Amino acid sequence: MNVKPIVLKLGGSVITHKEKPLTPNREAIDRLAHEISQANVLPLVIVHGGGSFGHPFAKAYKINEGFKDSSQIMGFSKTHQAMTKLNGIVIDALISHNIPAVEVQPSSFMITKSDRIKAMSNKVVEKLLETGFVPVLYGDTVLDSEKGFAILSGDQLVSSLATQLAAERIIVGVDVDGLYTSDPKKDKTAKLVQHLTMRELKKMQHEITEATVTDVTGGMLGKISELIPAVRARIQVLIVNASKPDNVYKALIGQKVVGTLIQ
Amino acid sequence: MNVKPIVLKLGGSVITHKEKPLTPNREAIDRLAHEISQANVLPLVIVHGGGSFGHPFAKAYKINEGFKDSSQIMGFSKTHQAMTKLNGIVIDALISHNIPAVEVQPSSFMITKSDRIKAMSNKVVEKLLETGFVPVLYGDTVLDSEKGFAILSGDQLVSSLATQLAAERIIVGVDVDGLYTSDPKKDKTAKLVQHLTMRELKKMQHEITEATVTDVTGGMLGKISELIPAVRARIQVLIVNASKPDNVYKALIGQKVVGTLIQ
Repeated sequence: MNVKPIVLKLGGSVITHKEKPLTPNREAIDRLAHEISQANVLPLVIVHGGGSFGHPFAKAYKINEGFKDSSQIMGFSKTHQAMTKLNGIVIDALISHNIPAVEVQPSSFMITKSDRIKAMSNKVVEKLLETGFVPVLYGDTVLDSEKGFAILSGDQLVSSLATQLAAERIIVGVDVDGLYTSDPKKDKTAKLVQHLTMRELKKMQHEITEATVTDVTGGMLGKISELIPAVRARIQVLIVNASKPDNVYKALIGQKVVGTLIQ
Repeated sequence: MNVKPIVLKLGGSVITHKEKPLTPNREAIDRLAHEISQANVLPLVIVHGGGSFGHPFAKAYKINEGFKDSSQIMGFSKTHQAMTKLNGIVIDALISHNIPAVEVQPSSFMITKSDRIKAMSNKVVEKLLETGFVPVLYGDTVLDSEKGFAILSGDQLVSSLATQLAAERIIVGVDVDGLYTSDPKKDKTAKLVQHLTMRELKKMQHEITEATVTDVTGGMLGKISELIPAVRARIQVLIVNASKPDNVYKALIGQKVVGTLIQ
């Protein structure tokens, strides 16, 4: 590819009403499609999360624990179908804003190994980008060579795609302003970390995995940890609040925007 | 795989109202899902056509001619999205009848070469079958290494899948009783061909390609021609009228049913 693509993640908590099962946030989806259309940056890959389409089913049928008994079989089908439906809504919005979006379904070409992407053929994504399309992938239920099946998070997908496509940068749209020193939804004194180096990120992550401290950031650090391989490959990561209008637009065109920059 | 799978094709003319764009035949889809559920034969692969979801868009944007100008880009996206929507309706019906159906999207893992499948990884389909799922594929718009993009017919997919999976047999559900000596929708004297050998099929096909006669069978012979590689691999093909209740059920469980048997 001549021009390096931007990989844009749209968080499940942004594009769905997280507390209501199977409920898309159509207003947010339409606004984001409009922002992406206005920014008009190509090549672009979009990855979205599952939000209230994926999580309730996945939890009910314990998909993340792998294939343990036959009662999960229908659960896997239902979870997968729910994720696919959310994707259909996102693609409809993108197309209505004249973005040539094409679904690329992770489970159709990927089998994880103990929850991790081991090998991933990017032929279709690359050829879609070369032809002028905007490939849209998503967190999906996938087959797993060790566990039977697994959940592939949008964040792991973003990191793997960006690294393999040698992306220019990653924009992660979430429902908070970025990484905070503590959970901003619970702690009013939480401070936004506007810049994070690889060294700082690894130190924070190390402290959490060593269990000397718990993840006080409201889960954001775990999310960011998935992106370490991309940061290591010198791909800039910008976390922005995609629930606030114009942030994704500004991030796409390279304007200054409130958020956490990791590089 | 220990047990050879059955490959079931559900024709686009059966599951959609062919004259009305984007209109599923929900009654037929639900009835077929019920029949498949009642038959309860595993392993099973389902492939469906596009009918009025695929054809109108594909025709309008000349997708079958390949990528010629940028105005087709949005057309490809729309056609693909339409095909995916029909698949969503089919999967919903299958799941509601307790069939563990999982969409496998051809365009996500396949790139044709001048309209033809050259290489096809069946890993996901095979592992789905082994785990107890019913993979559901469909005629799709795909990327093409020579033409940019192309239309992959459900019939080509059926033949390729059945051959590679060493299927036990293929059941092709269409909206007529089978192959006729002439077009049964236009000619009342048309006679159903109940049995066709490979030799007879090749003779008929040869006559058509040599243009000494035209395809008087209402397009059925062209459809069947796609299945020649499977017939050559000694996979039995049964064409039945899936618009008539119980035919697909009977065919699945191996009961005698009116149709055209090719072997």
